[in-house]
Amino acid sequence: MNKDELKDMLNMVADGTLSVDDAVNKIRLQPYDDLDFAKIDTHRGVRQGADEVIYGAGKTAEQICKIVEHILAKSAKSVLITRMSADKAEVVAKRLPLFYDAVSGIGIAGERKEQEPVGNIVIATGGTSDIPVAEEAALTAEYYGNRVTRLYDVGVSGVHRLLDNAQVLADAKVVIAVAGMEGALASVIGGMVDCPVIAVPTSVGYGASFNGLSALLSMLNSCASGVSVVNIDNGFGAGYFASMINKI
Amino acid sequence: MNKDELKDMLNMVADGTLSVDDAVNKIRLQPYDDLDFAKIDTHRGVRQGADEVIYGAGKTAEQICKIVEHILAKSAKSVLITRMSADKAEVVAKRLPLFYDAVSGIGIAGERKEQEPVGNIVIATGGTSDIPVAEEAALTAEYYGNRVTRLYDVGVSGVHRLLDNAQVLADAKVVIAVAGMEGALASVIGGMVDCPVIAVPTSVGYGASFNGLSALLSMLNSCASGVSVVNIDNGFGAGYFASMINKI
Amino acid sequence: MNKDELKDMLNMVADGTLSVDDAVNKIRLQPYDDLDFAKIDTHRGVRQGADEVIYGAGKTAEQICKIVEHILAKSAKSVLITRMSADKAEVVAKRLPLFYDAVSGIGIAGERKEQEPVGNIVIATGGTSDIPVAEEAALTAEYYGNRVTRLYDVGVSGVHRLLDNAQVLADAKVVIAVAGMEGALASVIGGMVDCPVIAVPTSVGYGASFNGLSALLSMLNSCASGVSVVNIDNGFGAGYFASMINKI
Amino acid sequence: MNKDELKDMLNMVADGTLSVDDAVNKIRLQPYDDLDFAKIDTHRGVRQGADEVIYGAGKTAEQICKIVEHILAKSAKSVLITRMSADKAEVVAKRLPLFYDAVSGIGIAGERKEQEPVGNIVIATGGTSDIPVAEEAALTAEYYGNRVTRLYDVGVSGVHRLLDNAQVLADAKVVIAVAGMEGALASVIGGMVDCPVIAVPTSVGYGASFNGLSALLSMLNSCASGVSVVNIDNGFGAGYFASMINKI
Amino acid sequence: MNKDELKDMLNMVADGTLSVDDAVNKIRLQPYDDLDFAKIDTHRGVRQGADEVIYGAGKTAEQICKIVEHILAKSAKSVLITRMSADKAEVVAKRLPLFYDAVSGIGIAGERKEQEPVGNIVIATGGTSDIPVAEEAALTAEYYGNRVTRLYDVGVSGVHRLLDNAQVLADAKVVIAVAGMEGALASVIGGMVDCPVIAVPTSVGYGASFNGLSALLSMLNSCASGVSVVNIDNGFGAGYFASMINKI
Amino acid sequence: MNKDELKDMLNMVADGTLSVDDAVNKIRLQPYDDLDFAKIDTHRGVRQGADEVIYGAGKTAEQICKIVEHILAKSAKSVLITRMSADKAEVVAKRLPLFYDAVSGIGIAGERKEQEPVGNIVIATGGTSDIPVAEEAALTAEYYGNRVTRLYDVGVSGVHRLLDNAQVLADAKVVIAVAGMEGALASVIGGMVDCPVIAVPTSVGYGASFNGLSALLSMLNSCASGVSVVNIDNGFGAGYFASMINKI
Amino acid sequence: MNKDELKDMLNMVADGTLSVDDAVNKIRLQPYDDLDFAKIDTHRGVRQGADEVIYGAGKTAEQICKIVEHILAKSAKSVLITRMSADKAEVVAKRLPLFYDAVSGIGIAGERKEQEPVGNIVIATGGTSDIPVAEEAALTAEYYGNRVTRLYDVGVSGVHRLLDNAQVLADAKVVIAVAGMEGALASVIGGMVDCPVIAVPTSVGYGASFNGLSALLSMLNSCASGVSVVNIDNGFGAGYFASMINKI
Amino acid sequence: MNKDELKDMLNMVADGTLSVDDAVNKIRLQPYDDLDFAKIDTHRGVRQGADEVIYGAGKTAEQICKIVEHILAKSAKSVLITRMSADKAEVVAKRLPLFYDAVSGIGIAGERKEQEPVGNIVIATGGTSDIPVAEEAALTAEYYGNRVTRLYDVGVSGVHRLLDNAQVLADAKVVIAVAGMEGALASVIGGMVDCPVIAVPTSVGYGASFNGLSALLSMLNSCASGVSVVNIDNGFGAGYFASMINKI
Repeated sequence: MNKDELKDMLNMVADGTLSVDDAVNKIRLQPYDDLDFAKIDTHRGVRQGADEVIYGAGKTAEQICKIVEHILAKSAKSVLITRMSADKAEVVAKRLPLFYDAVSGIGIAGERKEQEPVGNIVIATGGTSDIPVAEEAALTAEYYGNRVTRLYDVGVSGVHRLLDNAQVLADAKVVIAVAGMEGALASVIGGMVDCPVIAVPTSVGYGASFNGLSALLSMLNSCASGVSVVNIDNGFGAGYFASMINKI
Repeated sequence: MNKDELKDMLNMVADGTLSVDDAVNKIRLQPYDDLDFAKIDTHRGVRQGADEVIYGAGKTAEQICKIVEHILAKSAKSVLITRMSADKAEVVAKRLPLFYDAVSGIGIAGERKEQEPVGNIVIATGGTSDIPVAEEAALTAEYYGNRVTRLYDVGVSGVHRLLDNAQVLADAKVVIAVAGMEGALASVIGGMVDCPVIAVPTSVGYGASFNGLSALLSMLNSCASGVSVVNIDNGFGAGYFASMINKI
Repeated sequence: MNKDELKDMLNMVADGTLSVDDAVNKIRLQPYDDLDFAKIDTHRGVRQGADEVIYGAGKTAEQICKIVEHILAKSAKSVLITRMSADKAEVVAKRLPLFYDAVSGIGIAGERKEQEPVGNIVIATGGTSDIPVAEEAALTAEYYGNRVTRLYDVGVSGVHRLLDNAQVLADAKVVIAVAGMEGALASVIGGMVDCPVIAVPTSVGYGASFNGLSALLSMLNSCASGVSVVNIDNGFGAGYFASMINKI
Repeated sequence: MNKDELKDMLNMVADGTLSVDDAVNKIRLQPYDDLDFAKIDTHRGVRQGADEVIYGAGKTAEQICKIVEHILAKSAKSVLITRMSADKAEVVAKRLPLFYDAVSGIGIAGERKEQEPVGNIVIATGGTSDIPVAEEAALTAEYYGNRVTRLYDVGVSGVHRLLDNAQVLADAKVVIAVAGMEGALASVIGGMVDCPVIAVPTSVGYGASFNGLSALLSMLNSCASGVSVVNIDNGFGAGYFASMINKI
Repeated sequence: MNKDELKDMLNMVADGTLSVDDAVNKIRLQPYDDLDFAKIDTHRGVRQGADEVIYGAGKTAEQICKIVEHILAKSAKSVLITRMSADKAEVVAKRLPLFYDAVSGIGIAGERKEQEPVGNIVIATGGTSDIPVAEEAALTAEYYGNRVTRLYDVGVSGVHRLLDNAQVLADAKVVIAVAGMEGALASVIGGMVDCPVIAVPTSVGYGASFNGLSALLSMLNSCASGVSVVNIDNGFGAGYFASMINKI
Repeated sequence: MNKDELKDMLNMVADGTLSVDDAVNKIRLQPYDDLDFAKIDTHRGVRQGADEVIYGAGKTAEQICKIVEHILAKSAKSVLITRMSADKAEVVAKRLPLFYDAVSGIGIAGERKEQEPVGNIVIATGGTSDIPVAEEAALTAEYYGNRVTRLYDVGVSGVHRLLDNAQVLADAKVVIAVAGMEGALASVIGGMVDCPVIAVPTSVGYGASFNGLSALLSMLNSCASGVSVVNIDNGFGAGYFASMINKI
Repeated sequence: MNKDELKDMLNMVADGTLSVDDAVNKIRLQPYDDLDFAKIDTHRGVRQGADEVIYGAGKTAEQICKIVEHILAKSAKSVLITRMSADKAEVVAKRLPLFYDAVSGIGIAGERKEQEPVGNIVIATGGTSDIPVAEEAALTAEYYGNRVTRLYDVGVSGVHRLLDNAQVLADAKVVIAVAGMEGALASVIGGMVDCPVIAVPTSVGYGASFNGLSALLSMLNSCASGVSVVNIDNGFGAGYFASMINKI
Repeated sequence: MNKDELKDMLNMVADGTLSVDDAVNKIRLQPYDDLDFAKIDTHRGVRQGADEVIYGAGKTAEQICKIVEHILAKSAKSVLITRMSADKAEVVAKRLPLFYDAVSGIGIAGERKEQEPVGNIVIATGGTSDIPVAEEAALTAEYYGNRVTRLYDVGVSGVHRLLDNAQVLADAKVVIAVAGMEGALASVIGGMVDCPVIAVPTSVGYGASFNGLSALLSMLNSCASGVSVVNIDNGFGAGYFASMINKI
C-alpha cells in the first residue's frame, strides 16, 4: 500500500464508503509480515512512498517466489526484483507472471503498471559496457513512473559526443551518469547542467580499475558541485534516488 | 550573473530599457576571466544556477582576495568561500567585508543576501564531533536560500534519540546525514523517511575508521533506498546538492 | 575429554571405581595425537572446555574422515565440522554417522548430544542473504548446549522490524548480530540491549562492500559500547564465543 | 539513573515512600537531554546498565564541562571521560572534581565510586608500548567495579613469559589481550584458557604495521576459538565489554 | 658532460686541438665519482643525454652542496635540484650561485643556460592548487631547453574553459595534464589532441582523494588513447619525459 | 578518415577533382554515428590521427560486428579490435575478413594495411608469462606502421641478459618495458637508454603481486628519469603511445 | 653447469685431461640460450650455485617441454619445475622423464640426483591446509640436497604442540615457518630458536585473511628477531633460501 | 648471559672454580626479571645467542634507563638500543655510559665490546636517503661482531654503479639490500650473487611509494631466488638476521 492508496482509503472513510473498523484493520496490520527467512515490509509504501523491492542476488528462486506471492497477495499489484539471474527468472516465470530483462537482471512480477511517465531523467553512460547498469537504473525509474531518456556511449575521451547532446542534458530534471574506468563523466556533466547528477561507478574495466574502485573514488572527488554517488554497479539505487527527485 | 539576473536583463531588453547591443555585450563576455593562476567562471550562475564558489584550502590568502575582488567587481554581490583557515580569514577580512564561521571554515565575502529561506533541509549528525562538517553543509544551504533544521548528536547507538525526532525528519524535503565511524545513521534515516537522503561520511574516529573510509564504505552500502553519498567531510557538496533538490 | 568427563573420572577415582593408575594413563596421554598431516588436540576439552573442532575447508574428505575417526575412537562422542562442502559431506556420510546442514556447511559426526539447552542466545541478521552465516553460528551454539532464538531479516533500513522485537532482544543473555553491506545492525542492537553483542560481518553484497570489508570496518567502529567483532563470515567463532558467555 | 537506582525507586513506590506521580515524573522525563550540540542519554543507565560515557577526543574542553555538569546534576554521581588530552583535563579540573590518568587519557569527573571489585579480568600486553591502551581498558573496567589483574610485556616472541603466567591466566574470568605489530598474543592466550578473550590491536609499531592494521587482521584471523576483537586502540571498548561478561 | 659536449671534444680531437691522450683521460674517468654517501653519475649526460639531477628531499643541505660542488667542478655548468625546501635552499645559496623557486621547490645551481627554447610543451592544470606540481614540470622542461605554455585552472567541471583553449592544446607537441581529485583532465585532453599526453596526478584534495590515489587510478584508467602516467606529484618526471619527446 | 586522407581530399578540391560541395558533405557529417548502444567516432582519424579502436572485452560479438561493419562502410579500410576472446573472434570471422592473434586477443578486421614500417620500438619483457601483453603492444604498434623489435624474457634477476642486449636497446627510438611481479625492468632499462620508456605492469604473479599492483607501484616509483606508466596489462595503450612518439 | 662441475673441469685442465681450448669453449658460450620466448640462463649454476628453475604457472606445457629439453641437453641433468598443474604435468610426462608431486605442484624432469642430504631444515606449518606450500618448500630443499624435517599442524592456538617439539626445533640449522590466517607461528618459533627463521605466509583462510595479506603483515611485524619473510605461498623461495643458509 | 658465557661458567664448574650451588643459582634464576612495565628476558642470550635488545621508540627515557640498568647489573656488559631519538639519548647519556649514532638512532649502553669482526656482510643502498636504515643494520651487525662493507647509492637506475662493484658483492657472505621507491635493488643483486640477500624496503619516497609499501611489495615479488624480506625500515632486523647467517 503506497501513499496514494492510503489517501484513497482514507477518502473512502471520509465519505462513508469504508467503515472505520475496516480501515483500521487494513492499516493496523503489523508493519511487516514474517516469512521466517524474510520480514516483508508491507508498510513501506506508506512510509517511504514505494513498495518493497526484492534484491534477487542473495535469495533462491524459491525464496523469491514466496516473497513475491506474499506481497502480491497482501500489499501490491506488482513487485520489482533486481539482480535476478536468468536461471532464477526462468523458475519464477513458471509460477508467476513475470517481465524479465536479461541485460539488467531486472524482473517485474505481477501486473505492470500502465502510467503516463512524468518528468525527465537522462541516463548517460561512458561506454557500451556500462549499459547493463544503466538499464537497471532506467527500468527502475520507468517502473516508478518516470520518463527516461537514454544517452549511451558518450564518454569524455570524445567529449564532442557529450557536447553535441548538451540540449538533451539541459532538458533533464535529473541526470544519472554511469561510467567505469576513470569515471570522469560525472564531473564533466556536473559542470554542464544545473540539475542534480547521480553518479554510478561501474565495475567495467581491468587492471587498476580494481573492479570499480577507480571510478568510485573519481566520482567521489568530482570537482563539479551537484554530484552525489551510489555504490558501484548500483543502477537500482540511482534509478530510485533519481525518481525521488524527479517526482518532487 | 545568475539565471534570475539574466531574465531581468532580457526583460529590460524586451521593454526597451536596455539596448540589444548593451545586452549582447553583457552576455557575450568570454565565459570566464583569466587571472593567470585561476580562470574564474563568470557564467556559472547562468549555466548552473549558482555563482562560482572558492575552495580555500589550496589557495593563498592573496589568491583568495584576488578572486573574490574580481568576482565582486564583475558578476556577483557575494562569494562563498569554503575550507578557509582562521589565519587566511584574518587576512581576507582586512581587505574585504567578510562573514566567517570558524567551526566550519566557511566564509562569505561581500554583502550577505537577505532572503526568506524556502523548503526544509534537515541536517542530522551522529555525534558532536561531526558538527563542523554539518555546519559546512548548513551554512552552504542557508547561503543559497534554504531553510535548515539542525538535528545534532542523534547517532544510532541510541536509536530512541532518532525515533524521538521522527516528526522532524518527516517534515524534511531533503535530509543530510553526517556521521563518522560506522556511518549507520544514513541507513536508519533512509528507512524512516520518503525523501532523498544525502550521506556525508566524516573523518571523525580512530583506528579502523581509517580517516572516514569506514563510514564512506558503510554509507555506499546502505541497505536503504534513497541514499546517495558525497566525499568524506564534504559538507559543502552535500549542502549544495540538497539545495538543488530542495529548490526544485 | 571435556571438563565434566574429567570430573566424572576423578570422582570415580575418589570413590574407588577407577584405579589411580588407570586414571593416570587416561590423563597422561600426550596432549595431542599425531596423524602426520594433523596433530589432534585431545586435551582441548580439558584445557578449553570444548573438544577439537574440524575446519573442513582446507582438508580433503579423506583427511576429515581420518581425524573424525581418531577423535571418536579416543576422546569424544561427537565432532563438529565446519565449512564442509556438500560433496565432502557425501563422502564422509558414507563412512561415518553424520548430521549435515547444507545451508551452513555444518556437519556433526558421531552421536548428537541430547541435552536441555541453557540460557538464551539471540541471533539476528540484517537480511535473508546473511542466513547461512547465522546458521553456522546457531548450529554451533546449539551443538554446545545453548538455547538459540533466531531473528532473521531485521536490518536497520526498516528499523521498526527491530524495535518490534525489542522484547526478544531484551530477553537475550548474548546477542549475535550478523550483517553484510553497511553492517549497522550491530550498533543499533548494541544501543538497545545491556548484554554483550557479538558482531559478525558477512561477505554479502557487491561493489564497495568489498567482500565484507565494509561491514567489518563498520562493526569495528560501532559507536555502541558492548560490541565486539569476529572475522568476516565467521559464524562458528561467534557461536562459540557466545556459548562461552552464555554458559558462564 | 542505573538499573539498581530504578529498582530502589520502585521499591520506594511499593512501600509508599514515594508517590506514584513523583515516580512517574522522575521516570517519564524525555530519555535524553538536549544541549544542542549533544543529546545526553540520561536513560542509558536503565537501558544498558551503565551511564553515558564521554568520548573526549572530538569535543572541546568547554563542551566536556557542559556535558559533565549536566550529567552530574541530573543522572549520575560520576562520569567517565575517555581520550581526554592533558590540556583539556587541566581546563576541566579547574571547574570540576576530576581524577585524571595521563598515560591512558582517562578522566573520572565527580565522586569516584568506592566499591568492592568483583570477578577477575586479566589484561595482558605484548610489550611496554601497549600499556597506554591497556590502562584505558583497566581503568574502565575498574570504574565499573571489576577486579583487574595486569600482566604486561608478555609478548609471544618470548613465549615462556606467557607460559610462566599460565596460572594467572587460568584464574581469569575474562582476558583482554592488548598487542600491536603481529598481534599473535590473542591467539596464543586463546589457546591457553577456557574463558572469553577480547583482543585489542594497538597502533604501536612502524612500517608494515600500518598503524595497527596488521595486528587487527591478525587478531580477526585468530586460529583460537573464543577470541573476539574491538577497534584498534579501543581500550575503553574492551574494558566495557569485559565488564559486561565479568559481571554476568 | 652531455652528448653535444662529447661531440665537440671529439671534433677537437679530429682537428688536432685536443690530443688523443687528453681526450682519453677526459672520457675514461670511471663513470661515477664516489662521495661515500653518494655515487655521482658523471657519464649520465653521455649515456642519457641529460646530466645528473639531485633529488633534494632525502638529503641534507650539506650533502646537496657537496654533490653540486663536485658536479660543477667535474662535469657540468649547472645542476638541477628538485624538492628542495626553502631552508635548505637558503643554506645552499650561501655557498653557491643558486636560482630558487619556492612554489615548486626547484633549484638551479651554477650558471643558468641561455638557450633558445624549442618545440612546445603545454602544461595544463585542473585547478589553482595543482600549480606547484605544474611549475616543477615547467621549470624542469625549461631547464632542458623546451618552450613551455602554461594553461592553468582548466578543470573539467567547467569544460568550456578547456574547449576555449582547444587551439592552444592543438599547437602542443606534448601535453602535460596535472590534476588532483578526480583526475579527469587527462582523459578529456587525451580525446582532444593527437599528441602524447603525460598525466601527473597530484595529492591535492581531501577525504577519498587519499593523497592522490584517486587521481592516479583515474588517470591510469583513462579511456583516451595516448595517455601515460607518472607518480603522484612527480612534476619533474613529467617535465623530463615531455622534454625527451619534444626534442626528438 | 585520417589526416592523410583528409589532405588528399583537400588536394582533390584544390585541383578541381572534387567539388567543394561534395567535400563539404564528406567532411561535415556529424562527428560520430549513433548506433544506439555505441556512438562511433568517425572523425577521430582527423582529430587524433588514428581511427577508432574497438575494445572487445565489454561487447558482444554481435555488437563488435555492427560497429566494424559501420566503420568499414563509412570511415576506414580496417579496424583494430583489442581484448577479443577466441569465441567472439570465431563469430566475427564468419561475417567479416578478420586477422586474429589468440595470444594477445588482437583482431584486425578489413584489409590489413601494407606499409613500410618506420622508426624502431623495442618491446622488452621480464619473463615468458608477460608475452601476451607484450604482443598486444607489438601488434598495435605494427598496425599503426611502426617497426617493432621484440626482446623477451630479459628480467632483471639475470641482468646480464639485459646488458647483453644493450645495443638493441640503444637502437630504440622508444622502449616498452613489460613486466609483472617486481616490475624492476623499467627502472633498469630507464637507466640504460636516452629515449622514452613506457612501462606496462602485468598481472602475472601470485601472492603479494596483487594482480599487478606490485609492478604498477614499482614502475610509478621508478628512480630512472624518462619512464612513464600505463594501466596494468594495457599493451594496447603502450603500443599506441609508443607509436605517437616513434612517428614524431 | 654448477660451481663444482666448473671446478672439476678446471682441475681437468690443470692435470691435462682437458685442453685449454676445449675448456674455453665449454665456458665461453654466451651466458644464456635464446629460445625466442625464453632466454635460458645456462651460467646460473656458475654464478649462483644452482641451475635455472622453471616457474610453470605462466607457461604452456609446450613451452615447459622446450625449455626442459634445452637445459637437459646443454647444462644440467635435472630441472626443477614449480607450480605445474596436473594437466601440464601429464603432457610433460609423455615427452620427458618426470617426477611429479600433485600436492605441491613440484616437478623434477630428468634424472633425480642421488645424494646424501646435509644439515637440517625444519619445516613447520600452522595447520593441515598449509601443507601444499610446505611441501613446495620441502621438495625444493630436498632437490638441492638438504635434509628436511617436517613438523606439520603445530599452530599457536595449541602452543603445547609446538613446545612439545622444542627439541626438534632446537636441532634445526634453519626453520621454515609456514602459516596462513594470523601467521603467529613465525614469531613464536622465532622466540624459541637461535637459528634463522624464514616465514612463509599462505593464502589459506577466509574473510579478513584477504588471501594471505593478514599472515604476510603479521610475519613482517614479527616481534622476534631472526625472522625474514618471502612472498605469500612462496614455498619454493623459502626452500631455496633455507638451502643457501643450510649449506653454508 | 650468552652461550659463551654459559659455557665459560660451566667450565669453571668443571674445574672447580665455581661451586655447583653458585652455578645453579646463576642459571636457575627465573628466565625473566619483572620490572612491572617490562619483563626482561635475561635468558635470551642462552636461548637465542644474543642478549635482549631495547626497542626505544615506544618507551620513555626513564623506562629505557631502568631496563638498561637492570640488564647491565644482571646479565650483560652492554645493551643495544634501537630507534632512540636524540632527546631520549641525551637523557640516557646523563645516567649511563652511552655510544649514540644520531643518523640511525642506534645506542649502545655499557662497555662496547672489542672484538675482531668475522665474515663479511655487504650492505648496499639504492640511494643516499636510505642510509639511516642501512646504518641501523650496519651498527647492529657490527655490535654482534660481524665485518660490514658499506656500498651506498648504487640504485638500479644507474646499473653500472652496481656492476662496477660486482667483486665487492661477490665477496659477501650475506648481502643486505636497502632501498625505497621501486625496491628493484634486491632483485638485481639477487641475480648477481650466490649468497643470501636480505631485502629491507624503506619508507623513502613520495606519492605512490605509499611510505614503503611499493618497495615492500616489489621486494616480496623478487624474481631472483635467494631473497627474503624484513619489515619496512627494519634495519635492525636485517642486521640481526644477517649476523645469524654470517656467523654460522
